[in-house]
Amino acid sequence: MTETLGSTGEFGLIAAVTKGFPQGEDVLVGPGDDAAVVAVPDGRMVITTDLLVEGRHFRRDWSSAYDVGRKAAAQNLADVVAMGARPTALVVGFGAPTDLPTAWAVELSQGLADEADLLGVSIVGGDTVQSDKVVVSVTAFGSLDGRRPVLRSGARPGDEVAVAGRLGWAEAGFAVLTRGFRSPRSVVDAHRRPQPPYAEGPRAAIAGASAMCDVSDGLIADLRHIAEASQVVIDVRSQALAVPEPLEAVAAATGLDALTFVLTGGEDHALVGTFEPADVPDGWTVVGSVAEGNQDLPAGTVTVDGAAYAAPAGHAHFAS
Amino acid sequence: MTETLGSTGEFGLIAAVTKGFPQGEDVLVGPGDDAAVVAVPDGRMVITTDLLVEGRHFRRDWSSAYDVGRKAAAQNLADVVAMGARPTALVVGFGAPTDLPTAWAVELSQGLADEADLLGVSIVGGDTVQSDKVVVSVTAFGSLDGRRPVLRSGARPGDEVAVAGRLGWAEAGFAVLTRGFRSPRSVVDAHRRPQPPYAEGPRAAIAGASAMCDVSDGLIADLRHIAEASQVVIDVRSQALAVPEPLEAVAAATGLDALTFVLTGGEDHALVGTFEPADVPDGWTVVGSVAEGNQDLPAGTVTVDGAAYAAPAGHAHFAS
Repeated sequence: MTETLGSTGEFGLIAAVTKGFPQGEDVLVGPGDDAAVVAVPDGRMVITTDLLVEGRHFRRDWSSAYDVGRKAAAQNLADVVAMGARPTALVVGFGAPTDLPTAWAVELSQGLADEADLLGVSIVGGDTVQSDKVVVSVTAFGSLDGRRPVLRSGARPGDEVAVAGRLGWAEAGFAVLTRGFRSPRSVVDAHRRPQPPYAEGPRAAIAGASAMCDVSDGLIADLRHIAEASQVVIDVRSQALAVPEPLEAVAAATGLDALTFVLTGGEDHALVGTFEPADVPDGWTVVGSVAEGNQDLPAGTVTVDGAAYAAPAGHAHFAS
Repeated sequence: MTETLGSTGEFGLIAAVTKGFPQGEDVLVGPGDDAAVVAVPDGRMVITTDLLVEGRHFRRDWSSAYDVGRKAAAQNLADVVAMGARPTALVVGFGAPTDLPTAWAVELSQGLADEADLLGVSIVGGDTVQSDKVVVSVTAFGSLDGRRPVLRSGARPGDEVAVAGRLGWAEAGFAVLTRGFRSPRSVVDAHRRPQPPYAEGPRAAIAGASAMCDVSDGLIADLRHIAEASQVVIDVRSQALAVPEPLEAVAAATGLDALTFVLTGGEDHALVGTFEPADVPDGWTVVGSVAEGNQDLPAGTVTVDGAAYAAPAGHAHFAS
């Protein structure tokens, strides 16, 4: 008989998963008490939280438990590096039905631990509860190591806009999966398990990025967040955006537009930043520029090749 | 027409709720960026997280949105003070269906903000997503202000066990509500909105508490956590436990046992600590004592009046 959470029980589950959570030297009190205690040598803690809900952010028939764990950790760690910070720790809330196989929960936790381990991040605490659908909440922490945080509000006219990481791959994978297919494998894998360019966040901060965020809602939508917070206009040059072959293949097979994947697809957790032209780090791709607002293009506007962008601007929750 | 999350949209909701979130002076970057940044002058951050799921932790027909918000904040803030720490900040994840009235979400956030405000705590960030049922995740933070954390593992033979706050009230309220009644109002209110003795956590730490936790699973179950972590035996004296009149009334009306509410009811978020006899703070009630384990009563055991306690030991998730 398959062991389920009902037979393993809350405390059995906690014991099974926490033994796979190595604790770094900054962890003063780890899992098992009312709260964890983490050293914050910098005196400032970077904090971000995300909630993932089955059927909305993942499907158990599309993604393995391990991949859901990797993705849940990745999207939070990407938010930390998007501040220019170094991720240090995370805590996890986990809700699941009683009949969930215990192995599923253990594999999820292994995915979380392995993604955290890429960056030496400790999983310092959590909560497990019963719920009809699987719910995963992750709160991630980071250290600025003495640097200023890189906010969305710092972009200045004359800056260049540059990107690190992939755009549109996860969205193309989602388009494939929603049509019942499983290939091209590269985009399906990208949907299941994002690969944020973690090291580039602190690197961009050190290089002098004036603004930065991670691309979770889509390039245009996330640049709009920067344009609004910074009160500037941002133009994207479509010629500068690579449209990789697998995205062209998905576009051809589905009748969708490959450039739209790149401009509006989120969940690859690329990083987009603004820099003075001399400061753009090696390996980042310049894809646009920052200008002042004017009567025709008010501050907060994002254009593509100088013109308003007509296609859907990206993902928003609760949209009908 | 009632405005719903579907018409308000994610960004409209975030704008509506965050304006009610005052930010304290320790908040270096508040809501609206990829992550928040909070000052941690002590150099150590206390961190705890909880997940609340509709139908499991609250029912929308039993509790107002405002009360759910108060409770979600309270149970996390109680975990922070149970470490002997002063709560400083929290972040919130919120999942809800598209047809949820926007007013419900705004009232929930007001409840969170008001409970946080009791302690000068800032709500520094969050995430809103779509889900079939309402889900609220809260991660709370605190400062030890130079003190050592009070762990579950510090109880020593010869210590006394003392309690601050109420026991059994929320459980009696739950018993009433499950039977379709709404009174006695005092226990129903206790179920809807716990009143943890926040100030007593840091006070107990300063007084020298050797171990402490908040009573969320029930007194016996939470004392077992202390007994196991400290490798001691704890005896509770039932005569020392007050059984308040409303609990007697509920017991008489339901055929349940009032003392069982007190011994096994969680969710009032009382604090239970162990102290050298001279250190028990004023206002705390001594309810038992700590001893070494022996052949008959191995370490990790909790007894009531010297005997093994036969009734259910408290709440555990995923229990059948």
